[in-house]
Amino acid sequence: MVSLRSAQQQLRKRRNIVEEALEDFVQEKMASTQAPAMTLAREVLLAGGKRYRPVLTMLAFESAGGEDVSEVMDLALAAELIHTATLVHDDIYDFSKTRRGKPTLHASHGLAHGIIGGDYLFVLGFGLGGKYEAKIVEKMAETCANIASGELLQHEHIGNLATTPENYYSIIDGKTAGPFATACACAAIVAGASDEVVYSLEEFGWEVGRAFQLVDDLLDLTGDENMGKPRGGDVHEGKMTLPIIHALTMLHGIEREQLADVLQNFSDDRWNELVSLLSTAGSFEYSEQLIENHVNRALLQLESLPQSIARNLMEEVAKRSRSRKK
Amino acid sequence: MVSLRSAQQQLRKRRNIVEEALEDFVQEKMASTQAPAMTLAREVLLAGGKRYRPVLTMLAFESAGGEDVSEVMDLALAAELIHTATLVHDDIYDFSKTRRGKPTLHASHGLAHGIIGGDYLFVLGFGLGGKYEAKIVEKMAETCANIASGELLQHEHIGNLATTPENYYSIIDGKTAGPFATACACAAIVAGASDEVVYSLEEFGWEVGRAFQLVDDLLDLTGDENMGKPRGGDVHEGKMTLPIIHALTMLHGIEREQLADVLQNFSDDRWNELVSLLSTAGSFEYSEQLIENHVNRALLQLESLPQSIARNLMEEVAKRSRSRKK
Repeated sequence: MVSLRSAQQQLRKRRNIVEEALEDFVQEKMASTQAPAMTLAREVLLAGGKRYRPVLTMLAFESAGGEDVSEVMDLALAAELIHTATLVHDDIYDFSKTRRGKPTLHASHGLAHGIIGGDYLFVLGFGLGGKYEAKIVEKMAETCANIASGELLQHEHIGNLATTPENYYSIIDGKTAGPFATACACAAIVAGASDEVVYSLEEFGWEVGRAFQLVDDLLDLTGDENMGKPRGGDVHEGKMTLPIIHALTMLHGIEREQLADVLQNFSDDRWNELVSLLSTAGSFEYSEQLIENHVNRALLQLESLPQSIARNLMEEVAKRSRSRKK
Repeated sequence: MVSLRSAQQQLRKRRNIVEEALEDFVQEKMASTQAPAMTLAREVLLAGGKRYRPVLTMLAFESAGGEDVSEVMDLALAAELIHTATLVHDDIYDFSKTRRGKPTLHASHGLAHGIIGGDYLFVLGFGLGGKYEAKIVEKMAETCANIASGELLQHEHIGNLATTPENYYSIIDGKTAGPFATACACAAIVAGASDEVVYSLEEFGWEVGRAFQLVDDLLDLTGDENMGKPRGGDVHEGKMTLPIIHALTMLHGIEREQLADVLQNFSDDRWNELVSLLSTAGSFEYSEQLIENHVNRALLQLESLPQSIARNLMEEVAKRSRSRKK
């Protein structure tokens, strides 16, 4: 076991490696004919994301027996580039004006630049991922197609009070858990791991990715306004997240009608009303319990891997996802 | 030499092969978890494009000595999928309501579906292209990055009367000629052709692609309203196409001022005024001459290839691009 302090240092070290690789990549493109597109893309790419995907990609590679991390860096960067591409495009059709405290690309540069900037980030991600063997490229393409399906499904369920937990899981598996799973699985493939190890790391990715999105959705309802993104964005957008789906199922009679009314006619002054209804329904505890389950399943997958610092750090990332504050 | 009648039949045959392959591909995805995304994408994918890119990809493969066309079909489809993706996204930020006589994706399904539908088409294209060797994947990624740069450049020059012919060629090389060149070059690589043949076919692609875009831009000014897309769309959008750039350079004094005024305050009732000024400046003849030059350079590249039906058909495609009516 690594100590908590040491784990923090080790994770920070890997995040720094990712930052440096990203900066080098940006510099390389800035010195090419792609400078105009990269000038736009780097604004959002270097705006300080948490780099969970590339860090987990590196750790999965190491825990699967990979030694030379440079072999997996293009894959790690591809995961971050594609993730960033989806954020840029999401922000357009979610009409989001800020992200990570800064104006979104389309908010500062207009619709065309937002769309093209996102397309460019997608292309860069595929360009890096395309260097790997066909099996990896196919997995990436399928995962990205499923991101699109998940996003479509989410959009189709906007404001739909009949959304089921199964719908919710289809959405988050497509848009979040799938990319985590594929990043971990492909990293293991690059490391030359056995099918069993690839499978364990893929399952780890699914479970951590689900926990990650559940926490994100919970924070939208419970988060401190001063920590990162504004509270209640999902509610304003009519997104059906798990606590809300749960409360709609659990409440009956007048309370169910009141909740439907709050959701359909939401405004910030009804915030306490919403939180009170979700508390009555036990929806926060329900979500927390599911997060706990996903984290535990993720940890279980790691047990089949040989002991290593990387494995310990992945445990740390999984455990931390529970108590994430932003 | 193949007769004109035979050439038409042969080209139609190849276009049919592309249509069938596209339909099979759509069916395969419709039977998968990607059905929701493909339901959207197929609306535009099977809306009857001219399939120039995949047909030229097939012909380049054959003329480079390739025998089993199935080897190059994924590449041919990738070219069409990526092209369609860019059309879907272009139509959003160009605020186009129709294409090929049908409502655009975002016009019928909204902004989110337009953006996600385009992303999905990109992903499909890369998924197919990603099966080929690293050299091809890199070429594809670079070409797509240059599409983004070309689109950005075009957008930045909207309404800019100081746009130069060099700016114009940077734009069309990025968004149109580059994809033609890469499709032809990669097809030759798949066919196992020599570097010389790859080079000739790449140059052929550049020249035909330029001719193709110049014709497109000329048709926007001279086209019959009853043939395909509405006339004057580029002028309404403030796009600086070559005839306009030429006229702005050639005209002086009052005529130059009048042209600037027409462009900056354009409305349909000033159409004849615009056409008259472009005629006075000799801008139509100038564009036609450049188209002729590009077609001739394309034909010259083909001369270095061994005689074949495919080579004859490529000559036919190049020659036809001159007299295209829509």
